[in-house]
Amino acid sequence: MPKSPHSSQAFPRPFTTVDVVIFTVIDDQLHVLLVKRPTGEAEPYPGMWALPGGYVDIERDKDLEACALHKLQEKTGVKSPYLEQLGSWGSASRDPRGWTATHVYFAILPHAAIKPDPDSHATEIGWFPVKGDGIGRKLAFDHTAILETAITRLRSKAEYTSLPAYLLTETFTLSELQHVFAVVLGRPVDKSGFRTRVLSAGLVEEADGVKTGASRPAQLYRLKSPKNLTFFPRTFNPRKE
Amino acid sequence: MPKSPHSSQAFPRPFTTVDVVIFTVIDDQLHVLLVKRPTGEAEPYPGMWALPGGYVDIERDKDLEACALHKLQEKTGVKSPYLEQLGSWGSASRDPRGWTATHVYFAILPHAAIKPDPDSHATEIGWFPVKGDGIGRKLAFDHTAILETAITRLRSKAEYTSLPAYLLTETFTLSELQHVFAVVLGRPVDKSGFRTRVLSAGLVEEADGVKTGASRPAQLYRLKSPKNLTFFPRTFNPRKE
Repeated sequence: MPKSPHSSQAFPRPFTTVDVVIFTVIDDQLHVLLVKRPTGEAEPYPGMWALPGGYVDIERDKDLEACALHKLQEKTGVKSPYLEQLGSWGSASRDPRGWTATHVYFAILPHAAIKPDPDSHATEIGWFPVKGDGIGRKLAFDHTAILETAITRLRSKAEYTSLPAYLLTETFTLSELQHVFAVVLGRPVDKSGFRTRVLSAGLVEEADGVKTGASRPAQLYRLKSPKNLTFFPRTFNPRKE
Repeated sequence: MPKSPHSSQAFPRPFTTVDVVIFTVIDDQLHVLLVKRPTGEAEPYPGMWALPGGYVDIERDKDLEACALHKLQEKTGVKSPYLEQLGSWGSASRDPRGWTATHVYFAILPHAAIKPDPDSHATEIGWFPVKGDGIGRKLAFDHTAILETAITRLRSKAEYTSLPAYLLTETFTLSELQHVFAVVLGRPVDKSGFRTRVLSAGLVEEADGVKTGASRPAQLYRLKSPKNLTFFPRTFNPRKE
């Protein structure tokens, strides 16, 4: 990060923002959280839907991830979700207000955990079902492309990691786990092949208790390493199961 | 990217920089390009080695990638290398001059293509051999950790993509291709298994001509999709060959 293009540091700086793509599953369908752009005169893309985010506040945010967590908590009430950096997008043209660079994170959460503070924001928010590679409408700024990238990353990682498990609450049955993988992947997942892979990869461990319901009681499991993704062995190929 | 934390846009903004991790192979060993930090009084980490990079110049750089390409060309003379975004690092503490966020790219180049313009920079540059997960010395800023991330990404992608092929010039023999995979992975790669995988993945196509040398003439190949990475099928597991 050495030389400045100018001799002093008083040269124009880009705006720095953080945006968060927040996924959850509602009614067996993947959803993404969006916020409605304000309608003030000086506001770009007034009234359009956009990813939640905003400027980095150098007084408050010690780093980019803290900024992302702050924005996420504001919208969902969730403090420690699964959060991963997606990438950054920066150019002279993406925001009419000037040169901006945004650092984008994506988070996935169980729907049951979401309890936004009703007083914490005046912005209208909405959960939109993901269909194919987007939500079927154009978003503000370059957020349509950013959302596409996030959906691709999520599906790709569902092929070889434990990522979809973070959509479930702390304990779950193997049927629930299989189901959430199928929802994210957008295709059926074979039951016995899936169970073998999940157990041999050491993705889960037994939790105390069983789930009772319409069918016979089912053992509850939890993630063995809830802080880190577990990777399936590279020979795992759920397409072929 | 909506709301500002303040009502006007006149709030303090982080510095925005771009850094580039540039890999090549010299004498059968992976190397990374570093630049020596200037030694002026106001300079952080004076005289230490760092990744090449610098502030985004909003007058000159239309976007982050253009900025990365500019910095890369300045140091290597190469205009269109394989370039990929690695991630971004931003915090109040990574640079004593203030809150900075850096967007990091990594590039890989054939050594023969590197022809830096001797007049384009006064900074001392050096190529350092990669050993294990770094170069065995502490770099300026948080560049030690950034370099580690880049090496991990490069090795990981060498397991299932055509990435190491970009270290070769336009045409190459299959032996040369196999060798550069082994150099990046840091372990031997079995000859017949490798050839089968490479040819069945459609990674290369025959080029005109053969390479003659000490042994019998060898067919030359080139990348079939030089602009995009080719992915090996997910069953490719070179460790087991």
